[in-house]
Formats: sequence, C-alpha cells, structure tokens
Amino acid sequence: MTDGTRPPPAAGNGLLDRRLFLTGGAAALAGLGIAQARAAEAPRQPWARVPGAPMSGYGSRSRFEEHVQRVGIGAQPGTSGSGASRTPLEHLEGTITPNGLGFERHHSGVPDIDPERHELLIHGRVRRPLRFSMAALARYPLVTRTYFLECSGNSGVLATAPEPPDRGCGELHGLISASEYTGIPLAALLDEAGPLKDAAWVVAEGDDAARMSRSVPLVKALDDAMLVLYQNGERLRPEHGYPLRLLLPGYEGNMSVKWLRRLDITAQPAMSRDETSKYSDLQADGSALLFTFPMAVKSVITSPSPGLDLHGPGLYQISGLAWSGHGAIRSVQVSADGGRSWAAAQLDSPGSALGLTRFRAAWRWNGAPTRLLSRATDHSGATQPDRADWLARHGGSAFYHYNAIQAWGIDADGRARNVYA
Amino acid sequence: MTDGTRPPPAAGNGLLDRRLFLTGGAAALAGLGIAQARAAEAPRQPWARVPGAPMSGYGSRSRFEEHVQRVGIGAQPGTSGSGASRTPLEHLEGTITPNGLGFERHHSGVPDIDPERHELLIHGRVRRPLRFSMAALARYPLVTRTYFLECSGNSGVLATAPEPPDRGCGELHGLISASEYTGIPLAALLDEAGPLKDAAWVVAEGDDAARMSRSVPLVKALDDAMLVLYQNGERLRPEHGYPLRLLLPGYEGNMSVKWLRRLDITAQPAMSRDETSKYSDLQADGSALLFTFPMAVKSVITSPSPGLDLHGPGLYQISGLAWSGHGAIRSVQVSADGGRSWAAAQLDSPGSALGLTRFRAAWRWNGAPTRLLSRATDHSGATQPDRADWLARHGGSAFYHYNAIQAWGIDADGRARNVYA
Repeated sequence: MTDGTRPPPAAGNGLLDRRLFLTGGAAALAGLGIAQARAAEAPRQPWARVPGAPMSGYGSRSRFEEHVQRVGIGAQPGTSGSGASRTPLEHLEGTITPNGLGFERHHSGVPDIDPERHELLIHGRVRRPLRFSMAALARYPLVTRTYFLECSGNSGVLATAPEPPDRGCGELHGLISASEYTGIPLAALLDEAGPLKDAAWVVAEGDDAARMSRSVPLVKALDDAMLVLYQNGERLRPEHGYPLRLLLPGYEGNMSVKWLRRLDITAQPAMSRDETSKYSDLQADGSALLFTFPMAVKSVITSPSPGLDLHGPGLYQISGLAWSGHGAIRSVQVSADGGRSWAAAQLDSPGSALGLTRFRAAWRWNGAPTRLLSRATDHSGATQPDRADWLARHGGSAFYHYNAIQAWGIDADGRARNVYA
Repeated sequence: MTDGTRPPPAAGNGLLDRRLFLTGGAAALAGLGIAQARAAEAPRQPWARVPGAPMSGYGSRSRFEEHVQRVGIGAQPGTSGSGASRTPLEHLEGTITPNGLGFERHHSGVPDIDPERHELLIHGRVRRPLRFSMAALARYPLVTRTYFLECSGNSGVLATAPEPPDRGCGELHGLISASEYTGIPLAALLDEAGPLKDAAWVVAEGDDAARMSRSVPLVKALDDAMLVLYQNGERLRPEHGYPLRLLLPGYEGNMSVKWLRRLDITAQPAMSRDETSKYSDLQADGSALLFTFPMAVKSVITSPSPGLDLHGPGLYQISGLAWSGHGAIRSVQVSADGGRSWAAAQLDSPGSALGLTRFRAAWRWNGAPTRLLSRATDHSGATQPDRADWLARHGGSAFYHYNAIQAWGIDADGRARNVYA
C-alpha cells in the first residue's frame, strides 16, 4: 500500500497489483463501498415459509436462470441444422463449460444415434481392419483430460466487418468451450489395427447426414488424440457427438469429428469437401493455407463486456479466458488505457496445457471513458497480434483462425461495447 | 513384457503394471480379443439419411441416456423433500460430476429463491454488520477451484447393516460429487465486517424452511472457505444452493450450507439442532465426537461394480475414485485377490488437492471368483481401514464418516456384488 490505504498501481488508468484481491483484505475492498451496515435480518421470504421441492432424478436450472441460453444461433438458408450456436461466455465463470451451453457447429444437424446400432470402422492402410460396437469399445482403457475446443471460424466476423459489430462476448467469441473429456487413447486402437508403412493420414468421417470428414495427420492421431465417450462426467451430449467423437487437443474444432463412424488410414489427405471448400485460409499474398491445425493463442475479457456494464467508478475485478492450441498459457496482460500500458493478470488455478485458463485483474475505474484489452502469451512464446497486424498478415479475405486482441470500449456511463483496438 | 507378449504382474490374481495401458499398445491390448476384422462398412443408418435436429438454446441428453438418474432417492416419512438422492457413480467417468447428477441432501426440500430478493447478512461479533444483495456480491472478486463434497452419512449403511446390502456403487457411496466452483473468498467479506477479538465461530444459516444451520470455526472461514455462485461454469443449481452457498473444502457436506442467508459471528458454536441431533458420532468407548469436520481418506472402484459386470475372462481396466478432506491423494492400491496382495493404481491426471482423483489399473481376469478392493492413502499418510477395524474403533452405533475399504465380489459368471472385505 503506497499510502496505507491505496494499493499501488500496476499499469496506467487504475490497473492494480494482481495479488490485490488475494492479499488486500479490508483495506483494498473498502474501495468497493457497497456493503450496507444494516444489521437487521431480512423479513422471512415466502420460499422459506413452505417445504421446498423434492429430490429429482436429473436436475435442472433455476427458473431465474433460464434466460442464459446459447447465443448467435443461426442456420444456413433452407436448413434448420446446418449452422452454429455459441456459448454465452459473459454469463459463465470458471473454466468448464456446462454441457447444455457448449457451442455447436453442425453441417447437417444433430443425428439421433442409437448406441446399440452404432459402429466404428478402422480400415484402409492397416494390417487388420477393425470394426467396433460401442460395447466392444467399452472394454478399452480410458483416460481423462481437460481440453478446450474452438471452431476455426470463431471471432471471424471481426476480421471481415469494417465497423465493429455491436455484439456481446459470446456472440463474437462463443465458438469455444472447454470440458473434462474421458475417452480411449486413439493410439491404442490404431496400434491394434497396425498402420502400414506408407500410412500418414487418418480420414475421420462422421455419421451425420453430411458425412462431415477431415484428414488428420497420423502423428497427431498416435499422439494425444482421443475417442471421447464422456464429457464433464456424463456421456457425450447428442450435439457434441454422442455416442462417440474424435478429439484432437488444440486443433481447430471441426477436425474433432462428431458421431464418428469411420477412420480411413491413408497415405495422403482426402482433400474432402470440408477441408477444401471450407477451413482453408486465403492469405494477403494470394497463397492459401490449406491446413491450419492448432488454434492460435487468444484471450478475451468476459467481464466487463457488453451487457455486463460498470455501475459507477470504483474497484472492479476484470475476468477473462485465455487459451492456445500450441500449449499452456504462460501469461496474460491487461490494459485499461487502450494498450498504452499493460499489467500482468492473475492466472486463476491454471488447468491443463490445452484447456481454458481463467485470468483476473483488479481495476479501479475512475469513471472516464477508456478501452480494456487483454493479450495472452503461450509457452511457445507466441502472443496475440492487434487487429491491424492480423489483417496485414492474413489479408482482407481471411476469416478463419482470427486471434487478434479484443478491445471493449467503456463509456462514461459504464456501458461496455465492442470496439476495434 | 516377461515373454515378449505378456505384461508382467504387479500383484496377485492378474493385476498388471499400472503403465500397461499407457505404453502397452498392441501387444497388451491383444488380450482384449474383441475387435472384429470385418472391413466392410456398416449399412447407412436411418439417422444418417435425414437432416438432423437443429441447434438449441440449452442442450439435453440423448434419449438413450435417460436411464441414468440419481439413485437411492428417499425422503423421511411425511415429507417429500427431507431426504437425499445419490450420484450414480457407476454411470459416470472422469472427476467432474455433471450438475444434473450431483447428489442432494435437503432438510426441508429445495426453496425456489428469487435472487433479486435474496440477501446475505453478516453480523454478531463484528465491528460492522453487513448486508448484501446478490447485485452487491457481484462486485466482489472471484476465485475458481475444484472440490469434492461428501455427505458425512455417505456409505453409512455399510457400518450398520450386519449383512452386505445388495446395492450398487452409487446407492452405497453416491453421496459424493465434485465440481469446479467459482465464488468469493469468504475471508474478503469477513475482513470487511471485522471480527471482534472474541470471535471464534461463524454460524451459517440457510434460507430453506428448515433454516438448516451449522457452526464453522472462524479459522476455516478465513482460510479457504468460499461463497459459491457458479458450479461447473454456470450458476448454482437450486438443489445445490442457488443463488448462494457456503463451501468448506474437505469438510463434511452439510456444513457447506446451501441457500445461505446469514453468517452470525460468535464466540462459541451455536450447538444448533443440525449439529447435535445429527452429525455427532457416538464412539465405541461411549464418548461422542461432537465435531468431525474433514472427511476421511476414502476410495471406491466404480467399474467393475454391481451392474457393470464382467463379460468373460480377459483384460479389464479397473476404474475408481479416491478423495480425502485432509489433502491430496498420494496413492491408491488395488487388490484382485481379496486383499492378500496389492498393486499401485495409476492416478489419472490428479486434480486439485481436495477434488476427486480418478484411479485406474489393468487387470487380467482368469474367470475365477474373487474380490476386488481399493485402498487410498492421502498426503497426511492416512489410509483406509478395513471394515472390522473401523467398527472396532467407532463402535456399533457409529454411522457417519464411514471410510472403510470397499470390496466387490466377482462371481464366476462375472457378476459384481457388494461384499464385506
């Protein structure tokens, strides 16, 4: 404390030391000035005057929380299921996405698969083609890991829209979720099938009507790829691939093929519809990045953000998420003066290397309009570019794999809105 | 490998090295003998011939998984909400319990609380009594941690029933769940209220019709206690304390008072109904343990277990959960010969110190009847007693805090059932 009551600044415009909320206690929090010293008990509420509801077989949310829904739901013209829904990041906290709010991206809707009739085929350039019922897969060993999953199109509108869209955090960045996954290491099944010498790719195909398929490098499939059966403790949900999905930690989401029915081991990538018509990135110099597998380092402040506005000057906790497909988050910096100065955020119980990391920072807002930014750096040393740098590198027609710094403008009335940094 | 194909034993009756499934590959898994070499593709299933279901605002489970429900639901006579429901541990995997399946223990049902009208009062032996609306609490700093929560009555029937009850894993041991919690460190609010010199206890009271209340040592309240707002990313569910619950990591579940409305700072424990008529443990020597706060070290094999039977001799993965209120799990040992020999299980990505730890072991079953056991040891060095030792120490009328070793009998036909070790 510089003067015994005021915590020291960590960067310009009110950013405070990241340990403030851990150590500051009363002196620091006195700045909140929101507790009311009224010792009388509240009158007994109606809900406490009657016996409550009974136990239930499978619980559901409070009726007061039903407004929290996936956002940005949209389907392609003429379809109801070819499209996406987004995780409402601004309504969530921590690092796990509840299954009911995990983002969706479907190429022909969600199939209604009977697990008793579903099979997985492994064939192609292998010594022993194999076919598994779900009951047969149940005999294989499981591992449990926490990973994020991000659609490569996440945040892409920020690359293409000339003016910053007036949308919320989830609408802009909600094609990302994170879960605890339990499944079979794919290497176990591939070892059993025995890839031939020229095997180099695994073409994964889903059992939706679109037969969505992607080519996966065999080295990734033999490394940390999983065949997922459980998500956050329970069986996969239908919209996330029930009863079986591929999961490629850190890679762009569509490669983690849902409703997995077939792994075709090949010498070359399939050049499937879904990896040529989509998910290829035309660059500024006219070349195209055919394959961009790991998602780039990225972060976003979830609070404050549009809809979670500030209520007068004073002390606030900035909270956000950071992730990278290249490995663990090493640090996150935040700026409260539009990027002129930066302070290190607190990483709150950093999880697995390829999960989401929650970051937090203490900020005393003086009531003047400003811009809040976050910038993550991963263990490879990669850090987020600003929007102009990203556009200069990737060109005006690029859309996928957008990972530039997000800025939220704060107006004098405390309203937060999307701006370009 | 001892002979090039057979993995070495780790303990009697087929327990194999814990790294088998991580490193064994084809040679080890060949023992499964279940993959079918039929390379032909399965016929196109009906669900893949039609467009699937659209995106949804808040997802739900597959209709093929609706049989997975909380188990052992029971209420006291004349009530519908004074009772418990249990987590179906045998149907889950990993370490996170989905919110819909987290166990319940209510003393007068689940109140339907409107968060706009709910308040928290902190008063008693403090300098500044404080009263908070939920909106006021939203300004305070948050932390995210993963913890288990176990009812002190969990597994108690195994202490009192002379013959082993013919029940499943969740029915016997399902008064435990684990979640990622996000909330306010209680110390921040207590610091602001300013406990007086003689303050030593915090009496926490819920806003259910029972006004369930418990006394918490102030040292615990100032250490790692949280006021929880979010569970597994979303707001608390009603049955878990919406909109606000106390959480005391590692302590018996009922002290983590749900629907929290009041914290009364006192010099002495309140000796409330809920800490004298219940949750006191009469011992063999006639004395009573009035307060038993941290839950003891414990483990249970979730697979195989009753209902998850074995299908013929061969290789299996044993999977289970371990936890301790005294700190992280240091090791789990498993026995496949009724306790004569033990092998170290693999701890699968051990989580936070006071969360659940998933353990796994490789076992080649020879088809003969036997007993499977697990025994956890925590970082304090404490380990699980067997049932006879537990009863000798705690006496025939003890019920709470049962943590003896669980044994599953395996019959010649592969059926698993509850037995006393």
